[in-house]
Amino acid sequence: MYGLIGKMLTEPGQRDVVIDILLRGTEAMPGCRSYIVARDPSNENAIWITEAWDSAEQHRASLALPSVQQAIAQARPHITGFGERFETEPVGGHGI
Amino acid sequence: MYGLIGKMLTEPGQRDVVIDILLRGTEAMPGCRSYIVARDPSNENAIWITEAWDSAEQHRASLALPSVQQAIAQARPHITGFGERFETEPVGGHGI
Repeated sequence: MYGLIGKMLTEPGQRDVVIDILLRGTEAMPGCRSYIVARDPSNENAIWITEAWDSAEQHRASLALPSVQQAIAQARPHITGFGERFETEPVGGHGI
Repeated sequence: MYGLIGKMLTEPGQRDVVIDILLRGTEAMPGCRSYIVARDPSNENAIWITEAWDSAEQHRASLALPSVQQAIAQARPHITGFGERFETEPVGGHGI
């Protein structure tokens, strides 16, 4: 499996707007086992996204899906940058 | 919801032993929506654990479960420390 842990930074006051866009745009992604969007309680402009995929290829392919492309286009104006980013190799557990 | 992203460090050669202990000991935890164990591809002695819970209270209560207590006791001799640790507030997504 292929995993990603990453932090996204948004314009002040726009975090929940971006979260809504992310949740709507990522509902049906082939090969996606887990995609969890979370607020950062220590930074009101930060979002944590944790992902588990069957493969890195399927993650890469998801970026070309129309729903994901649309979400990226809608969210981009509100995104100011990115923080930590870690690639992982999920092995198992609950929820994947 | 309550979330945790954390890195655990293990003795050389013991990472998969600890992963097995974690996976076996965390199968049935009330209030746990997601508990994913992953290898760190950049550090052969590191494990990433990402968790989503209904509440912080249920996460805390899980530490007292016999199965979790047993896993902690079995894994502890092989754990050398912890790396990054982030608390989150999961909002939604796939797999929770």
